[in-house]
Amino acid sequence: MEQKYSEAGYGKYEVVFGDRPAVVVVDFQNAFTDPQYPTGQSELLHAAAKRTEHLLAEARALNIPVIYTVVGYREDPLDVGNWKTEISWIGIDSHAAQVSANLKPEPLDPVIIKKYPSAFFGTELVSMLTLRKIDTVILAGCTTSGCIRASIVDSFSYGFKTFVPSDCVGDQSIEQHEANLFDVKARYANVLTLNELISLMHQKSETTV
Amino acid sequence: MEQKYSEAGYGKYEVVFGDRPAVVVVDFQNAFTDPQYPTGQSELLHAAAKRTEHLLAEARALNIPVIYTVVGYREDPLDVGNWKTEISWIGIDSHAAQVSANLKPEPLDPVIIKKYPSAFFGTELVSMLTLRKIDTVILAGCTTSGCIRASIVDSFSYGFKTFVPSDCVGDQSIEQHEANLFDVKARYANVLTLNELISLMHQKSETTV
Amino acid sequence: MEQKYSEAGYGKYEVVFGDRPAVVVVDFQNAFTDPQYPTGQSELLHAAAKRTEHLLAEARALNIPVIYTVVGYREDPLDVGNWKTEISWIGIDSHAAQVSANLKPEPLDPVIIKKYPSAFFGTELVSMLTLRKIDTVILAGCTTSGCIRASIVDSFSYGFKTFVPSDCVGDQSIEQHEANLFDVKARYANVLTLNELISLMHQKSETTV
Amino acid sequence: MEQKYSEAGYGKYEVVFGDRPAVVVVDFQNAFTDPQYPTGQSELLHAAAKRTEHLLAEARALNIPVIYTVVGYREDPLDVGNWKTEISWIGIDSHAAQVSANLKPEPLDPVIIKKYPSAFFGTELVSMLTLRKIDTVILAGCTTSGCIRASIVDSFSYGFKTFVPSDCVGDQSIEQHEANLFDVKARYANVLTLNELISLMHQKSETTV
Repeated sequence: MEQKYSEAGYGKYEVVFGDRPAVVVVDFQNAFTDPQYPTGQSELLHAAAKRTEHLLAEARALNIPVIYTVVGYREDPLDVGNWKTEISWIGIDSHAAQVSANLKPEPLDPVIIKKYPSAFFGTELVSMLTLRKIDTVILAGCTTSGCIRASIVDSFSYGFKTFVPSDCVGDQSIEQHEANLFDVKARYANVLTLNELISLMHQKSETTV
Repeated sequence: MEQKYSEAGYGKYEVVFGDRPAVVVVDFQNAFTDPQYPTGQSELLHAAAKRTEHLLAEARALNIPVIYTVVGYREDPLDVGNWKTEISWIGIDSHAAQVSANLKPEPLDPVIIKKYPSAFFGTELVSMLTLRKIDTVILAGCTTSGCIRASIVDSFSYGFKTFVPSDCVGDQSIEQHEANLFDVKARYANVLTLNELISLMHQKSETTV
Repeated sequence: MEQKYSEAGYGKYEVVFGDRPAVVVVDFQNAFTDPQYPTGQSELLHAAAKRTEHLLAEARALNIPVIYTVVGYREDPLDVGNWKTEISWIGIDSHAAQVSANLKPEPLDPVIIKKYPSAFFGTELVSMLTLRKIDTVILAGCTTSGCIRASIVDSFSYGFKTFVPSDCVGDQSIEQHEANLFDVKARYANVLTLNELISLMHQKSETTV
Repeated sequence: MEQKYSEAGYGKYEVVFGDRPAVVVVDFQNAFTDPQYPTGQSELLHAAAKRTEHLLAEARALNIPVIYTVVGYREDPLDVGNWKTEISWIGIDSHAAQVSANLKPEPLDPVIIKKYPSAFFGTELVSMLTLRKIDTVILAGCTTSGCIRASIVDSFSYGFKTFVPSDCVGDQSIEQHEANLFDVKARYANVLTLNELISLMHQKSETTV
């Protein structure tokens, strides 16, 4: 299968890490990280949240901005739009809509409340990135086959160099996680391990000093 | 695997077909339908283009608007953005960027030239749909794991009821085609056969007469 | 001056009131309506807020949806972006960011928190309108020469028929209020009195019964 | 009148010229610069186009990217949307839709065809700017009270530092030109003369060498 794609020209180019990265942490909120919730059961996702703690420690040490998103809904039935999944139970002010305690934002970090898959859709994320002169977006969070996939496509489309540490994004199943990373890697973003990414982040940091 | 998703609440709701549908035909252009091109080899994709001829005949008989997109690039190397796939060879005025002859737009049909995956991104598609008072978007085209997937996510996010006839969308491989339809069906859109869709289109048409 | 514009073709067409209107109330929040604040001193603006109470009563009687916006900022200095005006004092959870008591939203009405002039920019307003199948947007609020002007341009650009009751939008000065309504009337929206608008709302309502 | 605005906090801050500017030339096309057309009669606008030749010469000497927009419409009556002005006569492939000969784009310069007031709306302009790592947008073109105003608001909202040389933007009348620059200067952008702007462009260029 991979051959078909490479013969058609997919995955031919690499994305080069830029000068000013930011980390966007998508939907690592209790609804997905806390096993008390129906969507909070996945070990793959828990492991990705755990790895993201390391990513954030590195980012903060290098003064790389961190922006969070969560999903949350008002009681208005129209607020959930046309979602086919049961999601309206994540109340906008509920525990389920809070960023997971281990990944807690610092006081000035933006936490964007969104309704739809992409971190960019119906939010001021692109303005936040422009104001910070960001050229490179690192995406962590969940789920790979939902909001991460959608956020990657928009990050790429807005012109950001997009990097996805595969062990910092998680899903309900490993099959859909991998199928989506395959698509993304062939078209939109560099997919690499957190260790490889940290190494890039440090190289860049040494260059700019 | 499906059980994990259904236990987490995915795929619980259906999308109800609305009152005013439009068909958006994404990237059924020679680059993907003509075997002379490296991206034009897929039989799955050719079959989807063939089925879309029937979809369009039905749409036109019922006065349902049809909007097309193609991708095409200028010689400016920045025009292709951060695409990792070899795509800059699809010149904006080339044969490869023309809608496939069998799916030819009628004189007043919009043909949107886009640069990025989603039919909505960086285009006036959402304005076109609002001006036509559309509430339901039917997506056909290619590729399921690329521009179709991205267009579905945006159609859903903009608040349109989104329908995907699975035999009118195609890809380089059946595996990625199916993996993407699985994700989409669980979250964003109704995925059905063309025959099932045509039946909905006619029911609606009878109701509104 | 008007002659120059009319000879050049401006203001030639009228916008026809559609079938499904919504009212968007832009930034009628304490910061602009309460005289305790530096931006809350304008009598023109107070009068517009008072007239908007009538507009809302009519809208609710006819089951026309009402959506509110407010501006409000976090303590992060980057949250205010490149605003040249002193606006960061409107804290996101402060009294200044609350909708004015006389125009109070009902429990299920959306209240969008925005950072920038347009009610559409960086918000999910366009999705809200699509989900409600809206074709006509009625704009009330403040200020005519700032957020109202920007919201009109986006409402028009997204393809909505746009109506502006001139006595339900206010500003710090009558000169800029009128200069902006002149521009808008020539290009983007029907500008009329609240009484004229109410009459259109009722005609439409009788037709659709 | 100005006092009312300054007491309310308008115009308090300046925008600082950034490190990577781009020039966006909005709608300096024959429809507005050639007196054979009904919208091409304004001397104020002609003078602005003439001054923009100098701006472009300076920009090219300093390797500052230049991006153009034009408006143009297909024969489809829905393509003009809800414009109240007579604009559908500007055919997408007509002489009226061509960039004025004196401001001619170089071969690799993007020329964006847009339908609506803002250079950003329904176009990939924001992606183009991100790909070029632009932090500062210089706007020239026409008309001040239409597409320039709308483009300024979006440039500001997307987070770009926005600069408007007042003698490089033109309109049908001096009154609306000035009324709009007053609004813009109070809120969104630095408004200055071309000479002042060129001086900033050179200072920046010397710093970065």
